[in-house]
Amino acid sequence: MSSDRSLRSIVDSAEDPASDFPIQNLPFGVFTRDDRDARRIGVAIGDQVLDVRGAAESGYLGGLSDPAKNALLGTSLNEFAAMGAGTRNNLRRALQNFLGLDGPLRGPAQARKFLIPQREVKLHVPFDVGDYTDFYASVHHATNVGSMFRPDKPLMPNWKHLPVGYHGRASSIVISGSPVRRPMGQTSATDEGPPTFGACRLMDYELEVGVFLGSGNALGTRIEIEKARNAIFGVVLINDWSARDIQKWEYQPLGPFNAKNFATTISPWVVTMEALEPFMLPGPARMPEDPPLLEYLKSGDDVVLDITLEVWLASEEMRQRRMSPMLVSRGSFRDMYWTFAQMIAHHTSTGCNLRTGDLLGSGTVSGPTVDSRGCLLERTWRGQQPLAMPDGSERKFLLDGDEIIFRAYCEAPGARRIGFGECRGAILAAS
Amino acid sequence: MSSDRSLRSIVDSAEDPASDFPIQNLPFGVFTRDDRDARRIGVAIGDQVLDVRGAAESGYLGGLSDPAKNALLGTSLNEFAAMGAGTRNNLRRALQNFLGLDGPLRGPAQARKFLIPQREVKLHVPFDVGDYTDFYASVHHATNVGSMFRPDKPLMPNWKHLPVGYHGRASSIVISGSPVRRPMGQTSATDEGPPTFGACRLMDYELEVGVFLGSGNALGTRIEIEKARNAIFGVVLINDWSARDIQKWEYQPLGPFNAKNFATTISPWVVTMEALEPFMLPGPARMPEDPPLLEYLKSGDDVVLDITLEVWLASEEMRQRRMSPMLVSRGSFRDMYWTFAQMIAHHTSTGCNLRTGDLLGSGTVSGPTVDSRGCLLERTWRGQQPLAMPDGSERKFLLDGDEIIFRAYCEAPGARRIGFGECRGAILAAS
Repeated sequence: MSSDRSLRSIVDSAEDPASDFPIQNLPFGVFTRDDRDARRIGVAIGDQVLDVRGAAESGYLGGLSDPAKNALLGTSLNEFAAMGAGTRNNLRRALQNFLGLDGPLRGPAQARKFLIPQREVKLHVPFDVGDYTDFYASVHHATNVGSMFRPDKPLMPNWKHLPVGYHGRASSIVISGSPVRRPMGQTSATDEGPPTFGACRLMDYELEVGVFLGSGNALGTRIEIEKARNAIFGVVLINDWSARDIQKWEYQPLGPFNAKNFATTISPWVVTMEALEPFMLPGPARMPEDPPLLEYLKSGDDVVLDITLEVWLASEEMRQRRMSPMLVSRGSFRDMYWTFAQMIAHHTSTGCNLRTGDLLGSGTVSGPTVDSRGCLLERTWRGQQPLAMPDGSERKFLLDGDEIIFRAYCEAPGARRIGFGECRGAILAAS
Repeated sequence: MSSDRSLRSIVDSAEDPASDFPIQNLPFGVFTRDDRDARRIGVAIGDQVLDVRGAAESGYLGGLSDPAKNALLGTSLNEFAAMGAGTRNNLRRALQNFLGLDGPLRGPAQARKFLIPQREVKLHVPFDVGDYTDFYASVHHATNVGSMFRPDKPLMPNWKHLPVGYHGRASSIVISGSPVRRPMGQTSATDEGPPTFGACRLMDYELEVGVFLGSGNALGTRIEIEKARNAIFGVVLINDWSARDIQKWEYQPLGPFNAKNFATTISPWVVTMEALEPFMLPGPARMPEDPPLLEYLKSGDDVVLDITLEVWLASEEMRQRRMSPMLVSRGSFRDMYWTFAQMIAHHTSTGCNLRTGDLLGSGTVSGPTVDSRGCLLERTWRGQQPLAMPDGSERKFLLDGDEIIFRAYCEAPGARRIGFGECRGAILAAS
């Protein structure tokens, strides 16, 4: 109902069919108007931000409990998200009433007082992130990368039995638009060393989709797969920047560390599971040759999210010459082998506790075709197939000044298109 | 001066030469007397806890700035630790005056009002831990484990060039005394699968030393090795529980994940760098065959910490029969190849930001001898050399009901012995 295509909002820009943020979306974020202000919870609507805190304080969001209203006064989404899907749904209904052109109660005048143009606000990492876990859930990505090193046997034996994942770095999660400093590190021309210390030369992005946890679980308990989707608050885009040369030298035997810890960029607007409902498809598909799943990873109603994902690249020269960014790849999140419900069930199968605000990344999203590969390592095949850029240069890996922009959207018959906004970052020279 | 052996305290039990907590130690912790109380900062002295918050509120800790006093009202050590080594030193002097038998100002009567027997308090994880990083810094451990899988070439080529580390799980850090539930997980009898799902059968402990960060660094900047030791607040013991069979199946190619995420136990008392000063030795030693270090890992005054580390084991039957725990191993932290200063310099060499309260683990501390190996995987050599237990049973890996106790202490000529208390945990059956 709340994703009903016929709903219209009082914000004209939200009625543009190309807008990422119609009233059917209403993603959550955290913003400030001024560096001296405390952070506030808002939702995106067209090219505006609704000051949710302000609207709640003024009593305009009916149907919310007092604890829910208090949680909306927070400087992050954690307290509100911890209240669960029911509370989130109540607020969604209240917001659609408040912002709806045909809203029964308030009419446009009241709501307009709480709208701020997005260009006038600064957006922040919306959750206090306790732990960040990164998975490796695209069979196309794992196969491509594996085949570079083990052509005869690209996938590890465990890969189709469990969603492979590892612990990431929470402190260096930054919001879209933050510059990303090229890291220094140890690299070696051979697998045997000796290494040298200097600026990363094989700088890459990784296109990922991430979820923020709403509710968690106590240590020693599990989130069963049938309940796992309900633990998710919403979805963002992630750029898991990667220093490929540092990674190659350091990663044995404990996995990537310094190659990934210098920055992870996320998009600012958290698209809720309710907004994504029209874009959930049964799945993921399994092939006859795929091994059977262990019971704890099986679900009767698991879904894939049909999110179209795009990577755009603009060099510094292109930006100076006001040239449009170049489309590097386009793929869909529905091509993933493992779902977030499976990742959550696996993650907690040991009794590991997830907490509100934890971020889970999907791993690089690559599709079956060359132009749906989600990182330069794959897209240029280790630099063997460089990209021709509109400014006349070519790219094997990222150069200083390059800006990477992820965009994403969902379309389905009978549903209003929704989008994710941007996840953007430009590379600064090493220091 | 503040580690002067001649200092004596008003607490008789602290004058016992075997006490871990003389006035020369004064480690910090966070405690409650009652489940309904807010957490408070305290220091251990003999068998007592000094209520530091109470003493500060009552104006008994002279020489502290108002911000420092406010930080001592916190429910974790983060705010106080962030104020740096100078503030920590001021408080140390004030505490030694307050608790000293020859203290010039207050005398015993005032201080006694703020002493609580340790047996009457509950201790908590003393910091809000943002990120937990685990290293692999013992050459004996890395060589032993490596030789089980690669007898001809146990150490990876990178191992002597950088302190290998990986991101750990912060949410499941628990305080000494917390039970540890045996995890469920995927394991495979062969390297090729297919796996089964069930209770971990190769449950192990890992004896580690950890440091909590006092001051951190901004994203995009580094902590140079010469300044790294000064960023450390203090030291604890860590049991990085490990499910060896889960680890073996899952860890390729991104490293350990579920094998380690179900629990990490730490000792409750954070021993400060000032208390450890008498036990710092120049080092670590390098052999002629060791490769030269890259500049960013070299320091003119790096030190090893001469901490004696012990592992004790008591089965459930031993505890029921009131038998003493069995000593499983004893080694020294001075045998490590990499120092915490090197770990910090390497960790931040990419610009990765460390934050106050971050925990860095050393990795398993093993020495050159069989009886100084810091985990059962090494101590029983994958179960091939089981331990004979005082209750007549034998151990290859941990059984349900087994309790592991780490103890540690420092001794040096002319210095008062100090200790770390215990890091203790017993295994509950899988559920």
